[in-house]
Amino acid sequence: MIKAGIIGATGYTGEELLRILAGHPSVEVTAATSRAAAGKKVSSVHENLKGFYDLTLENLNPDDMKKICDVIFLAVPHGAAMEVVPELLKDGTCKIIDLSADYRLPVSVFEKVYGSKHKAPADAAYVIPEVHPEITKDFKGRLIANPGCFPTGATLAAAPLAAAGLLKSVIFDSKTGITGAGNTPTETTHYPNLTENIIPYKLTAHRHLAEMVQEISRLQPGFENISFTPHVIPASRGIMTTAHIETKEKLTTADVKKIYEEYYAGKPFIQFAETVPSLANVRGSNYCHIGMEADARNNRVVVLSAIDNLVKGAAGQAIQNMNIICGLKETEGLRFPGLI
Amino acid sequence: MIKAGIIGATGYTGEELLRILAGHPSVEVTAATSRAAAGKKVSSVHENLKGFYDLTLENLNPDDMKKICDVIFLAVPHGAAMEVVPELLKDGTCKIIDLSADYRLPVSVFEKVYGSKHKAPADAAYVIPEVHPEITKDFKGRLIANPGCFPTGATLAAAPLAAAGLLKSVIFDSKTGITGAGNTPTETTHYPNLTENIIPYKLTAHRHLAEMVQEISRLQPGFENISFTPHVIPASRGIMTTAHIETKEKLTTADVKKIYEEYYAGKPFIQFAETVPSLANVRGSNYCHIGMEADARNNRVVVLSAIDNLVKGAAGQAIQNMNIICGLKETEGLRFPGLI
Amino acid sequence: MIKAGIIGATGYTGEELLRILAGHPSVEVTAATSRAAAGKKVSSVHENLKGFYDLTLENLNPDDMKKICDVIFLAVPHGAAMEVVPELLKDGTCKIIDLSADYRLPVSVFEKVYGSKHKAPADAAYVIPEVHPEITKDFKGRLIANPGCFPTGATLAAAPLAAAGLLKSVIFDSKTGITGAGNTPTETTHYPNLTENIIPYKLTAHRHLAEMVQEISRLQPGFENISFTPHVIPASRGIMTTAHIETKEKLTTADVKKIYEEYYAGKPFIQFAETVPSLANVRGSNYCHIGMEADARNNRVVVLSAIDNLVKGAAGQAIQNMNIICGLKETEGLRFPGLI
Amino acid sequence: MIKAGIIGATGYTGEELLRILAGHPSVEVTAATSRAAAGKKVSSVHENLKGFYDLTLENLNPDDMKKICDVIFLAVPHGAAMEVVPELLKDGTCKIIDLSADYRLPVSVFEKVYGSKHKAPADAAYVIPEVHPEITKDFKGRLIANPGCFPTGATLAAAPLAAAGLLKSVIFDSKTGITGAGNTPTETTHYPNLTENIIPYKLTAHRHLAEMVQEISRLQPGFENISFTPHVIPASRGIMTTAHIETKEKLTTADVKKIYEEYYAGKPFIQFAETVPSLANVRGSNYCHIGMEADARNNRVVVLSAIDNLVKGAAGQAIQNMNIICGLKETEGLRFPGLI
Repeated sequence: MIKAGIIGATGYTGEELLRILAGHPSVEVTAATSRAAAGKKVSSVHENLKGFYDLTLENLNPDDMKKICDVIFLAVPHGAAMEVVPELLKDGTCKIIDLSADYRLPVSVFEKVYGSKHKAPADAAYVIPEVHPEITKDFKGRLIANPGCFPTGATLAAAPLAAAGLLKSVIFDSKTGITGAGNTPTETTHYPNLTENIIPYKLTAHRHLAEMVQEISRLQPGFENISFTPHVIPASRGIMTTAHIETKEKLTTADVKKIYEEYYAGKPFIQFAETVPSLANVRGSNYCHIGMEADARNNRVVVLSAIDNLVKGAAGQAIQNMNIICGLKETEGLRFPGLI
Repeated sequence: MIKAGIIGATGYTGEELLRILAGHPSVEVTAATSRAAAGKKVSSVHENLKGFYDLTLENLNPDDMKKICDVIFLAVPHGAAMEVVPELLKDGTCKIIDLSADYRLPVSVFEKVYGSKHKAPADAAYVIPEVHPEITKDFKGRLIANPGCFPTGATLAAAPLAAAGLLKSVIFDSKTGITGAGNTPTETTHYPNLTENIIPYKLTAHRHLAEMVQEISRLQPGFENISFTPHVIPASRGIMTTAHIETKEKLTTADVKKIYEEYYAGKPFIQFAETVPSLANVRGSNYCHIGMEADARNNRVVVLSAIDNLVKGAAGQAIQNMNIICGLKETEGLRFPGLI
Repeated sequence: MIKAGIIGATGYTGEELLRILAGHPSVEVTAATSRAAAGKKVSSVHENLKGFYDLTLENLNPDDMKKICDVIFLAVPHGAAMEVVPELLKDGTCKIIDLSADYRLPVSVFEKVYGSKHKAPADAAYVIPEVHPEITKDFKGRLIANPGCFPTGATLAAAPLAAAGLLKSVIFDSKTGITGAGNTPTETTHYPNLTENIIPYKLTAHRHLAEMVQEISRLQPGFENISFTPHVIPASRGIMTTAHIETKEKLTTADVKKIYEEYYAGKPFIQFAETVPSLANVRGSNYCHIGMEADARNNRVVVLSAIDNLVKGAAGQAIQNMNIICGLKETEGLRFPGLI
Repeated sequence: MIKAGIIGATGYTGEELLRILAGHPSVEVTAATSRAAAGKKVSSVHENLKGFYDLTLENLNPDDMKKICDVIFLAVPHGAAMEVVPELLKDGTCKIIDLSADYRLPVSVFEKVYGSKHKAPADAAYVIPEVHPEITKDFKGRLIANPGCFPTGATLAAAPLAAAGLLKSVIFDSKTGITGAGNTPTETTHYPNLTENIIPYKLTAHRHLAEMVQEISRLQPGFENISFTPHVIPASRGIMTTAHIETKEKLTTADVKKIYEEYYAGKPFIQFAETVPSLANVRGSNYCHIGMEADARNNRVVVLSAIDNLVKGAAGQAIQNMNIICGLKETEGLRFPGLI
């Protein structure tokens, strides 16, 4: 059994890690930390876990964690991961999977995008498994930078065309559930402000754009003509990414479908929708559903990807990454369907 | 033109007063106060009012208000009304319509229910116009205690049977939209906690119960066998009250309908549903829709009332009360249908 | 491996059986039937199951089913189960778990409540496992009548007090998600009619009342003073039952809690809420969460139960019943937390 | 008083015409037609109108209508308007405002886009008042083609830049409430399919695209580089249009704002959001709220427009058009704020 610890276990991604790991046959959660809720039972804070954990939240320091964990998930806000990563990396062999943004970008890009100095740079591998097949059980590093939710949906929507070198311009118009904003009540999460509404924000300069550019330009070197506009929809979970893609050549829908099917062949978490994907079909699951249509009039293609922001966009992908680098089956503990 | 002022204009009931008064032909809003938002335009804070008001929010004291207003609406939290009512009543002739709970109950009851001393008792008339026909343009007082949202829905659901002396026991199982909780984000108003859910609270001892007992026992002297359990539903607006009523005699649905139709004859804001009432049909309006069914097996009747908690349950009823005591037509400025 | 078949696999309960059985370690789904969708892949009709089933829907008759299934789930509308049960029972040994209403009531009661003649009476066991401990792996029958969704929530909310003989009157005010109405679009399921609304229906005479009376009067012989009013809330899944209970004796909240904890001791799917239960905490799961409060003023108690109508209220309980009568662990394949 | 008739009064746009006209001081509704519901009271079919109309739905023919109406609104499906327009135009002087698509496009374009022969071509004026100032009370025609909901939102989002000749490419990514799909229950309108979801459809070839091209290329001759992808969001009302615009020149946000403010100066129903527009602020109203941001990195601008699809996108704009061609004040009967 792999002993797993979660630093920051009271937020949504912490809860999702606990929810999924409750059913993972090769993992036992040995530690879950919280400052504010230390001393409370995990299942008192996350009542959906009643009957699953007898664990108590503790305010553990990194040294304590290292002693009792083989893998440590960092489910903390941006800026907080870099506070503990150096100590976690010092001696020991525990693997670290950081769900924050702290290690996703090169330091210079990070500092520009996040507007503050990086306190503890370290080598990390940014891994969306479907587009980073180079990361395997032979991975020698100890730190995984788990991708952002929007970049996961966007990259999965554009990667096959990027890998084929066919992109000319891409606009990601993304629609996310509100859990992406965390579980602290704010004006945006206030029910009357969101229900029966849609809230566009950061229209041209969301911080996740840098990750999208990084990943897509890696697949199609030199390509950076990417725009990104996020919206919050009245939903708790899910990201629907509408990728408006201009291609270098005219493609039919069948051409595009073939490119995607070949690129994602053998990837267990990628499925193709009968027509368009639906957030309901991936709700609570680690799957990404994809659909597409080429515009008959021009060189444009619309590609859609649907993921659960908390699972494939966060906790599920983190566990998928753990499975891979720990030599488990990629799908272990993650084979459950979406909840319609 | 009646000059109206609103103390506490940034909350939901303040906004609704402004929204409705924007279309009231005999009223001009001359003052709207806020501490936190003083200096901002009303229409910057409530963007739905863009194009309707050029008014700026000010941090006015009661004395200032009295000079420029004929009617003053108090759209403040409980406990705050009693801080300003004495000064508003001192000299002058302005009418005061208090939407808080401060003047709805006798002092002794208030202090028991709200758990704190009443700082400034004063004579006030508690008025749901449909059950208080004694309040007319000849009203000599200056202070109206505008009823609570739940008590409005509950009293309208039970009043005809109470007036007929037929009640044996009543359980109000009420379902409210979340705007009743105000516009400050909290755990309950956090979108993921409410969507696709229903939140029961204060299962046996909500403070509004005292108002229900007061009004229903006034109509059927001595009757106090009333229970009340509120729930929040995933809706911004509306209260559906399901009144589970045990009657002294066996009644058919037709019997009950006749009692209600006679009791509410000539009341412009009461309408009877074809089958069951719907929150959609009263959304944004001052109407109360009512439906009912007698249980063929016993002496029980289920009566349903649907209102908009912010309109008939707050701002609309306040304006209806203003119309009545100011000698305007009861429906003036309030004749607009629900928004389906 | 138990070979399971599903008759009626395109509806919501059929889908839920497939979803849950996809993760059941001791069950293989060998047949799924549909008339309208015969020839289509299960995963084309239920796209959340892409990656889980290669099975094709077929229009199989009962004889075919018997040959390839050890257990057959009937996920068909009321009236359709009795069309196939006789043939399924004739020879063979397959177990039948009927999710329809056809075998839940004695024939005479069924015919009165459902208003039509029963075509094929048969012995069946009505089983909510938590209140029917007499059904074990030694069950000799072949037909289980799986309980209705509302009766499951209601019975679990009142059973401990009934078993203690303490009930004087009970009103179940239930709030259900709309999937209980099936997946055929109707006026009630039309999005604009339900969102931001609540729809009461069958105010005094819903057909599920007979099941509640049957089960509760079994626990407290002679007690039939039960009323039931259902409402649809803007939610896909879940039933929150608010049980307004009048007891023979005055009880404190602590008294009531003790009665429930003792009655449900050792029942894995019953959990007690920290304060009030939440549909979110049981969403997609087989758990029932319970909360309660006694009214300090009188002999009344409010008990709340939260279940997922499609899981504990249908498919999950059916699988729980299958586990029990097949000698598997009661919780096998059902140990997954709610999806917040 | 203008006597108004509504052909097709049971749908959502029919209901909205009735709802708004109930408060229009210069209009009396003298006829409302329906085949299926003939003989029923308007207020039995639209219960939100209880207390507002005593009118009965009738199955009137065009000749009957002409005799009792000065203005006739056609709130019928596409294809049905052309069945009655010739008769309505024959003799008489009644004005016709057609809310269907039948007269919005030149015949040749119509036949290509709608895939069927036009049975009764006629001269009509396509009018979004804010971009068609040439239509005034001096309008000599009798037939107004009321614009589609998506084209209204899209055109208002792009018109100022088009009029300035600055467009290089435009992608409209639109998000609509479900009432745009009508009030007949379908799989798309089925509550569980839409709640907590977003449904993209007709990804590259929605029929409304032709109207957008027509209007925008009228303002910027020769410009046709327009794409359009609609999505349904979990909302009854509203269209949020996210216009991803590539401009010929680099513009700052201030530049863009100035262009929009100048273009829409004096237009009463256009308002600019403090930051981004919100569907809540225009819910139920005839207003269009606009916001924008230029991308600092390139020649791209994101412009957002928010309207209520049933009001500014249908019934409200129809009444606005009626006001204009009948010589009333453009805003008469339409000055009510959005319902937050």
